[in-house]
Amino acid sequence: MNNFTFQNQTKIIFGQNTLEQTGLESKKYSDHVLLVYGGGSIKKYGVYDKVTTSLKEENIEFTELEGIRPNPLLKKVREGIDICRNNDIDFILAVGGGSVIDSAKAIAAGVPYEGDVWDFFSGQAEIKEALPVGTVLTIPAAGSESSPAAVINKQDEDLKWDIGSDLLRPKFSILNPEVTFTLPPYQTACGAADIMAHIMERYFTQTKNVEITDHLCEGTMKTIIKNVPLVLEEPENYAARAEIMWAGTIAHNDLLGTGREEDWASHSIEHEISALYEDIAHGAGLAVIFPAWMKYVYRENVKRFARFASRVWGVETDFENLEWTALQGIQAVEEFFNSIGLSTSLKELGVDTADLEEMAEKCTTRGTVGNFKELDKNDVLEIYKLAT
Amino acid sequence: MNNFTFQNQTKIIFGQNTLEQTGLESKKYSDHVLLVYGGGSIKKYGVYDKVTTSLKEENIEFTELEGIRPNPLLKKVREGIDICRNNDIDFILAVGGGSVIDSAKAIAAGVPYEGDVWDFFSGQAEIKEALPVGTVLTIPAAGSESSPAAVINKQDEDLKWDIGSDLLRPKFSILNPEVTFTLPPYQTACGAADIMAHIMERYFTQTKNVEITDHLCEGTMKTIIKNVPLVLEEPENYAARAEIMWAGTIAHNDLLGTGREEDWASHSIEHEISALYEDIAHGAGLAVIFPAWMKYVYRENVKRFARFASRVWGVETDFENLEWTALQGIQAVEEFFNSIGLSTSLKELGVDTADLEEMAEKCTTRGTVGNFKELDKNDVLEIYKLAT
Repeated sequence: MNNFTFQNQTKIIFGQNTLEQTGLESKKYSDHVLLVYGGGSIKKYGVYDKVTTSLKEENIEFTELEGIRPNPLLKKVREGIDICRNNDIDFILAVGGGSVIDSAKAIAAGVPYEGDVWDFFSGQAEIKEALPVGTVLTIPAAGSESSPAAVINKQDEDLKWDIGSDLLRPKFSILNPEVTFTLPPYQTACGAADIMAHIMERYFTQTKNVEITDHLCEGTMKTIIKNVPLVLEEPENYAARAEIMWAGTIAHNDLLGTGREEDWASHSIEHEISALYEDIAHGAGLAVIFPAWMKYVYRENVKRFARFASRVWGVETDFENLEWTALQGIQAVEEFFNSIGLSTSLKELGVDTADLEEMAEKCTTRGTVGNFKELDKNDVLEIYKLAT
Repeated sequence: MNNFTFQNQTKIIFGQNTLEQTGLESKKYSDHVLLVYGGGSIKKYGVYDKVTTSLKEENIEFTELEGIRPNPLLKKVREGIDICRNNDIDFILAVGGGSVIDSAKAIAAGVPYEGDVWDFFSGQAEIKEALPVGTVLTIPAAGSESSPAAVINKQDEDLKWDIGSDLLRPKFSILNPEVTFTLPPYQTACGAADIMAHIMERYFTQTKNVEITDHLCEGTMKTIIKNVPLVLEEPENYAARAEIMWAGTIAHNDLLGTGREEDWASHSIEHEISALYEDIAHGAGLAVIFPAWMKYVYRENVKRFARFASRVWGVETDFENLEWTALQGIQAVEEFFNSIGLSTSLKELGVDTADLEEMAEKCTTRGTVGNFKELDKNDVLEIYKLAT
């Protein structure tokens, strides 16, 4: 086990009838908030009404920034920063999924910073202060509701880069599984792939003696694997929606990575896809990339992949042939993604093979990616080809 | 899954060469700290030197309160409160195990309170403010290093009562597994029993649909079950000591109880033992009480006990006879405790059967205990008898 520091201050308010607490929690930070959200879905299903009613009950003024899209854009972040500065707003309330929350975090970092917010993403500046952020989560997927990270697309250069700072962890996050009843099946599945990926990025490590977090990772994955098919069958299954929602937060609140080197190659490799093809959901891209990454790297530590196959997927271990065991686990991942309606082929996703070379180039422009095996441009290109 | 709120702000600093950060972390809160510790062991094994050197390097003045004993006494808490008040001390640094940390928390609550600190334990007052506390953990057991709770003995009345408030969660806790190398085998085993008990108090619930936390509980228990025999065999096995230490914190940082009703009968039943018999370690008492409690209550939910047997102890499920399966799990618990050197008999522990009636009376003086099955005085007495 490696040395580590772990602290996660986000207050999680979980369960039914919790949206009504938004005003009370926000009031602890401000009387004037920037309300950030995406398209119309939060209005269609009553979330917007409950949240704004709660704000009004606490006499909290709110200014709206709507229209945050999946693979969220830098220009909307800049718009939010301007609104905050022009209206003396000092608290950001994100109501939505990862894109909305990530945009809120980027705005929170940008408001007190004199330069351009992209400086944080390009590594030219370090986040030293940020406005407080609160969230009402509507999509279990990104884990942004208690993570320190945010990912933003810079459209003009097809860049999708990230920032991370403990200053960006939300002060509170309200999680009501009922608001996920109306998620379309494809979005539920993409969220599940994202959650699984957050765990697998941590699970596949070369760090020895990490049994406690191995167990926690395995249990969280098994929760997702069991419950996602249940909600696809029965979208209003509260119990199963609750398991997925809480697992989605645990997957990415940093506990599961304590004491171990994490990987994150697959995320980097996927980001190039959704940077260039903005209609491809991050989770959909991960479902394609992760099995391909596994096929490319499993020989670096067959025993770990065998453990994964045995403990997570229930594969009977062949002790004389751990490689066979490992491969059964990778096949199980692919079959799981396919079974919940996700493709595991770049072609099916609509990615042009002519773009692969450029994507591999951009993915490694800041150096190799990943730790389980350090991958250079050629490695990444091979993985794209395996994913085709 | 039940509604819940979860927030744990404690900063965990884990690993080798971390005691040296004590000064830097303490400095964030104060220039004059109360240094609380137990007997001479921290001096014998170099912990005291490292901690005080680190404090001196940051020019932090420290006043010492030593001599905190297992089953810590109220009179030492009062002594600490007086020292803080008389010396304008506004930060408590606990260096030790659960008793030391619990004493520090009680002092922290008592200093700003006008009345007597026991009012919080007796329920006559509510904690509204507290001094900040930091810890350097030397015994993985109580989980007090990131919990909101503290347990104190009031010797003159043989009372052992507890308080809990998020205000009491330590601001930081430094966990270096190396400082546990010198723990005597019996103390290591008692700590393991305490950790297992913290998980089992949460695991045995009647709340339905708590799969994610079931998995997390099971994984944490399996980590303890595997690693404790390893450190008894090889006390300086860093990897195994690290697993136990981090598992001990996770067992009691409240994550494993999210969304479920917890039990806590066994803790209440044990507290009467270590209140009356001050030489009996809390963990030693729990190793006796928990199996007896299980035998008394398992019929309330045989399926849960069968799951426990199967998932935690690897018992082959007899689907035609879940009761047999459940009983195998209880037997495995007893065998585990015995195998690590703990008795599962009150008599062996030196408890006089003539005291059982009075202990059962005092245990239930504030009402029934436990939630898995609510236990009155007669139930508790039966459990003491089963434990004899």
